[in-house]
Parts: sequence; structure tokens; C-alpha cells
Amino acid sequence: MAKELVIGIDVGGQTTKCGIVDARGTVLAQTVIRSDSHTTVEPYIADLAEALKRIIAEAGAEDNIRGIGVGAPNGNYYTGIIENAPNLTWGGTKSIPFAKLLSKAMGGIPVSLTNDANAAAMGEMTYGAARGMKNFIMITLGTGVGSGIVINGEVVYGHDGFAGELGHTCAVRHNGRLCGCGKTGCLEAYCSAIGIARTAREWLDLSEEPSSLRSLDKITSKDIYDAAKEGDKLALKVFDFTGEMLGASLADFIAFSAPEAIVLFGGLARAKEFLTEPVTRSMNANVLPLWRNKVELVFSSLKESDAAILGASALGWEL
Amino acid sequence: MAKELVIGIDVGGQTTKCGIVDARGTVLAQTVIRSDSHTTVEPYIADLAEALKRIIAEAGAEDNIRGIGVGAPNGNYYTGIIENAPNLTWGGTKSIPFAKLLSKAMGGIPVSLTNDANAAAMGEMTYGAARGMKNFIMITLGTGVGSGIVINGEVVYGHDGFAGELGHTCAVRHNGRLCGCGKTGCLEAYCSAIGIARTAREWLDLSEEPSSLRSLDKITSKDIYDAAKEGDKLALKVFDFTGEMLGASLADFIAFSAPEAIVLFGGLARAKEFLTEPVTRSMNANVLPLWRNKVELVFSSLKESDAAILGASALGWEL
Repeated sequence: MAKELVIGIDVGGQTTKCGIVDARGTVLAQTVIRSDSHTTVEPYIADLAEALKRIIAEAGAEDNIRGIGVGAPNGNYYTGIIENAPNLTWGGTKSIPFAKLLSKAMGGIPVSLTNDANAAAMGEMTYGAARGMKNFIMITLGTGVGSGIVINGEVVYGHDGFAGELGHTCAVRHNGRLCGCGKTGCLEAYCSAIGIARTAREWLDLSEEPSSLRSLDKITSKDIYDAAKEGDKLALKVFDFTGEMLGASLADFIAFSAPEAIVLFGGLARAKEFLTEPVTRSMNANVLPLWRNKVELVFSSLKESDAAILGASALGWEL
Repeated sequence: MAKELVIGIDVGGQTTKCGIVDARGTVLAQTVIRSDSHTTVEPYIADLAEALKRIIAEAGAEDNIRGIGVGAPNGNYYTGIIENAPNLTWGGTKSIPFAKLLSKAMGGIPVSLTNDANAAAMGEMTYGAARGMKNFIMITLGTGVGSGIVINGEVVYGHDGFAGELGHTCAVRHNGRLCGCGKTGCLEAYCSAIGIARTAREWLDLSEEPSSLRSLDKITSKDIYDAAKEGDKLALKVFDFTGEMLGASLADFIAFSAPEAIVLFGGLARAKEFLTEPVTRSMNANVLPLWRNKVELVFSSLKESDAAILGASALGWEL
């Protein structure tokens, strides 16, 4: 009998989300484990395999799993390797044969790996805001900034499988912030959850402007969002700056692949009410006239956890 | 009897090159006309049709032309329209149904249009430095800076047919030079033939540094090249700066599509001996570590006129 279920796994900097998915895209069982409890990959894989076996048992899906699809930072579709992923505590500068390790831990179930953002783009194309679109760019605004580029209905992997690292294109060419990747001025250093928190911290340090954020020891993107909701002026300006930075970069991405839409996804994209205006304004101010007001800015409509799991799971069907 | 020949036309800012090409890629007859003698398109099309009829007669190819392929700035593959081409004297902000006009002037021979840089990329992929490559980015360094992006062996046209305008991505985000497109800071404003001449002129005006270029009324990229050949220090520094600017932008393009190689093409690319070192250095300094020293920098090996004609002619076979 053909196996009827797949597993989708989304490996993020802090948490890993897993789910069992059927052919109709229903998530039958899901769970979350920490990604950052270990500094080497082996104990992490052991945790993950244990969690998967638990949800497989829960769903009564033993012997019915066709394949496992994984979205992970710097995941390589061609090789199954996670290479130099600075946002993973067990990644760093290492070359990790993730697909092979997980398949072994799961008794030989085949595993396919891709970039987390590519997986999200597949989820969005199959079930979400990009349904029916053949040319779009998905930007994930999470711990880092990732991207999944779809051209003619297909995810772009490039010559080596690593295409679509738009978070590490240059947003500030001189005296830019140091990024986790070792370069300076990357978009990710400004427009990720960590980037926006850095902006808030810098502005608080450099001005006397009153803000409810001053009372906090450690500022997260969620804190800035909450403050902006309360009308905190500094928080609102931080969103405006972040949106402008992002919009200017999006203008350059449009010049590359002329997409129908840009889809924003991830934790920071939840701040739609504070990002839409500055992103749209800056994108249209910086793009070639021929694309002005023509490229749609769309916010993901899927529940974040579902989209990531569903996107990754789509890879499982190819196995 | 099946028609056995095609015409390839390369429309540049100053000249238009045309050739009759057979199935083996031999250019049987060719000619060049001025692109910039007129401010409206109709007399230009009349000049072009007259030139084509002349070479058709010369090659004895009456009734044997299958189709005409045209590469032109802002040429749209889907619609056959040249839209807002600032580098064409008869282009400007107009929307010109080029394929339709030329087909009519040529007695109904079908005409297919694309971006000049896309045409060059097709030429390079079929006959030149990118033979056998499935993922590469062609950058044309001419009057302007154009690009043709090839992914999985296919030219990227995008949602609207205008993909691959990398000359108008941002190289300088604040206080950048005004570009012909109306934006500021575009790569084209620095790394085109016109851009490098602007750099030389600015540096001459801002310093007292001796240079053979000082004696010239109007400086062209060719003058700077000749001066650099003679060891002129200012000219050499201008190339170094231009190469660094280009390399930094190439690093961002690599993050998009992870190409096997970047192919440089066009008049300015002839200055290979002065560009290779700074472009390579800057590209590798600005790219994500995973691509450092892995993406090849290739200079076009085709004769420029042939490559453009052959590339455009490839479109003619699809008709």
C-alpha cells in the first residue's frame, strides 16, 4: 500500500516545528521542540527523532510516512547539507549532513531538505497568499531575514542549491552593522526581529526621547510592536525606519526577477499595520518607474506554524 | 520550403547592428546604422527596414527569412513593446510597439523582441563564454548597464517580461548620482561607459592630480582606457573604483540566484586587465562566505557585434 502521509519540519533559530500532513494539507498532529538547547547536532537530532516518533504514534501513522521534508537555514536542496548556518547554535561554520543524519535516526525514512524560506514559499504557493502566482518573492522576517524566490512557478535553487539569500544583500554599504554572517550592512542586520531590536536599543541610547521601551532590560521585536500599538512615538519611528530599509531593498529585488508580488512572512510580518505604509512608500520610491505601484505587497495569510510545516511537507511528497 | 535564415538586430543607444544568420550561427551579411539620428521612432524604423532590405538582397535571401529577433533596451519579450527606454533618443518615456512596427515595415516578417542584455545572454549561452552553463548572470557594460539572467538554462523574463534590470539596482543609497532612469545611485550611473567618464571628470575637478585626461575637452571610457594603458595613475584609480563598485553589486546578485558565473560583456568589459582584480576582490569581500572564491568571473569571448546579433537572432528561430 502506498504510504499516505508526510512529515514537515521547520527548523528555526529558536524552535523547530514538526507536523504530520496528509495529501489534502491537513496537519494531523504537530509538536515543537527547542532548536537551541545544544551546541552539536547529534543530541538535537536525537531530540527531534524522539519528538517525531511521539507524533507518529499519536497519529497512529507508523509505517505510513512516505517522506520527511525539512526547511532549515542554509539547507541545501541538492546535497541535504546545512552549511554555515550562523543562526543555529549547532550550525555555526560547520557542514552538517542533516538529511542523512535525520533519515538514519528515523529508521531510513527518506528526508529532503531545503532553505526554510524556500519551504515557506512553497507553502505559500500551495496553500496561502501566493496561490496561483508563478512569479513572486517571499521574504521571511524572523530571527534572520530569509527569502524564497519563485520564477515560472518553481523555487530558484541556483547552481549550488543556495540561491535566495536576500537577507545578506547589502542594505548599508559603508559603516553598516555587523551581521551574524560576518559581513556588514546586511538587510538582516536591520530588518530581522533582532535587527529591529538593535535599532530600538541604538536610538534609545542616542537620544533622550521618552519611550515605554526605556524601562525594559532586554528589548524584543514583540516589545516594540506592543509599544507601537500603545502609540509610543519612538517605537513607531523604529517601524517606519525598518520598513523604509526593507522597501528600498525590495525595489532592488524587483529589478532582478520582476515578480507579481512580494510576500512578507514571519514573526515581524505580523506588524502589518506598522510596516505596510513605509515598505510600500520606500519600495515605490526606489524602484524603476516601470514597476512603480505595480508590484503587490502581500502579507502571509497562513498561520505561521502551519505554513512552515506545510511548505516543508511539500518536499516530502517528492520523495 | 522551410525558410532557412533569421535576422538578428541589436539596438544600442548609439548604433544598431543587424545581421543575417543561418542555422549554424554564421553571420552571412551584416550592417550598422545609427540609432540616435531621430527623436521619433517612425523614421528610425524606415532607416532600419531599408538597411535590412539591403543586406537581404546582398545575401540573396529574399523570401528566405523566417523571423527577426531584436534585442533592445527595455524590450519586452511578452508584448513586443519598448517601454520607457531613456538611452534611446526616440524612446524616452514612450511606449513603442517596436515588433509590430518593424514587422509591418518588413512586409509581415514576424518579429520577436527582448531586452538587449537578454539577447546577449542567449548569444553567450549558445556560442560564447557561457556555453554549457545553466545558471549565470550576464552584465552588459555599455552606454548603460544591462543584465540577462539565466536560471536552469532559461532567460528570466519575470511576471511582466522586464526582469533583469540590474543596472538600476542601488549602488549608492544616499546622495548617489542621478541616473538616466530618474532614480539616484543606480549601478549604471557608476559602472557604464558614461558612468566611468563621470567618475574621471569628477575626480579631475576635485583634485589637482596630474593626468593626461586633463587635456581633453570631453572624456570617454575609451580615453580612460587608453590613459590607463599608458600608466596614468588617475585613470588606473578610476578603473579600480569602478571595479570595486561593480564587484559589490555582483555580490548581491549572487545572493539572489547563486550563479555558476558572472559574464561581463560590452564596451567597458574590454578593459579586462584593469577590471578583473578590483571586481574579483570586491565581489569576494562582499559576498556571503559560502560563495567566496566560488563564482567565476568571465569576460565575453565573442566579438561584441557578433554576440549581440547572434543572441538576438536566436529569438528569430522561435518564430
